[in-house]
Amino acid sequence: MHFTSAQRLDDGVLEREFTLGEIPGTLWTPESAAPAPLILMAHNNGLPRAAARLVARARHTAAYGYAVAAVDAPGCGDRPRSAADEQVRADLRRAMQAGEPVDDIFESFIGPLVERAVPEWRATLDALLALPEIGGPVGYSGWTAVGIRLAAVEPRIAAAGFFAGGYVPRAQREEARQVTIPLLFLLQWDDEGNPRQRALDLFDAFGSKEKTLHANMGGHTGTPWFEVEDGGRFFGRHLK
Amino acid sequence: MHFTSAQRLDDGVLEREFTLGEIPGTLWTPESAAPAPLILMAHNNGLPRAAARLVARARHTAAYGYAVAAVDAPGCGDRPRSAADEQVRADLRRAMQAGEPVDDIFESFIGPLVERAVPEWRATLDALLALPEIGGPVGYSGWTAVGIRLAAVEPRIAAAGFFAGGYVPRAQREEARQVTIPLLFLLQWDDEGNPRQRALDLFDAFGSKEKTLHANMGGHTGTPWFEVEDGGRFFGRHLK
Repeated sequence: MHFTSAQRLDDGVLEREFTLGEIPGTLWTPESAAPAPLILMAHNNGLPRAAARLVARARHTAAYGYAVAAVDAPGCGDRPRSAADEQVRADLRRAMQAGEPVDDIFESFIGPLVERAVPEWRATLDALLALPEIGGPVGYSGWTAVGIRLAAVEPRIAAAGFFAGGYVPRAQREEARQVTIPLLFLLQWDDEGNPRQRALDLFDAFGSKEKTLHANMGGHTGTPWFEVEDGGRFFGRHLK
Repeated sequence: MHFTSAQRLDDGVLEREFTLGEIPGTLWTPESAAPAPLILMAHNNGLPRAAARLVARARHTAAYGYAVAAVDAPGCGDRPRSAADEQVRADLRRAMQAGEPVDDIFESFIGPLVERAVPEWRATLDALLALPEIGGPVGYSGWTAVGIRLAAVEPRIAAAGFFAGGYVPRAQREEARQVTIPLLFLLQWDDEGNPRQRALDLFDAFGSKEKTLHANMGGHTGTPWFEVEDGGRFFGRHLK
């Protein structure tokens, strides 16, 4: 893991860019001297780690006293795209503009992306936990499909907050029953393009004994800011 | 409003029994000198105001800095029951033990109870707001059916937390669209005897632009304690 830049933010949080082999990432750490618990943060559908909403959430969470890390998935964010990556994105755009069903395209796009992203997240986790400023336990926040696979295969993940607004491949819908850690599942009630019933079925499917659904009004990007604070308290119950 | 007893609790909360005409009630007020915002608290289906879970919630909420009031509905708690009250309760017990449908019995029991309870809550609210130790604004917590009617007809109610686990008469399911105040709707995912889909449909029906659903695992009485604290923060956003 190589740090390529660093800046100290107003609230004392240190924001550093890093690379781990081909993987570009960002690490936010709080000002405190003690090793901080870690939260891995990702956007649904492989949206860039530099997206404003993720950065705002990461900075706020770090200011609470967590180390927060985000990486770009293969073909996403700062990473080069293959011809196949470009093709599936073009197919998706075309189908969406035409109002055609997009489930099959999402399946062929997000399914393989999860398969490629999860081993990278595990390698990143190894590298992060080797840093002296980061302690356990580890939480996960955001991209549901990657989080399901990670929670199913990675015993170091102790609690997770998932955002329902993203495509969850068939394989991860099956794997949801294998997830047994405490969960906070965040749903936008009228999320355009993400059917509500599918999200409720997924919440029902998770194997966790302790799982909480928070649903709020509005569309995909309308999550109220107080949910960031609720997420902080959820992690506070399980990671501290 | 006549106070009939008073005790100071360990955390400084003053717990007083009162009567207002035929209505028996309890008022919890915080230690602070300034007039406190008020939360009206009721159990679904007219359960007694003296029930341990309501008392625990009321005391905790008062310790946060709220005045909290609960009254017994007609024929409930400390109040005398008519022969008709006794009959409908006996019918309900018999049907439940026999595993028969209970919707029609609940409708004939809870429907009239809401009609009788809401004017009493409004009279109680008048009397409470005349006390120097209580200021506005006013919140409501608990019994969904009474809360829907109150929120629809009583402009002094500024925000409400409803617990989904109780029978909501047809009239209040219709009135839900007239509720426009901020809502926190609390659902136990596997509440025995309170169908999940009916609760989700009710959440969908509320007219409020700002409404949040919190769903947790387990049966009717399994609500985790952190939801009391989440409720406190919800009221903190809207009543302070």
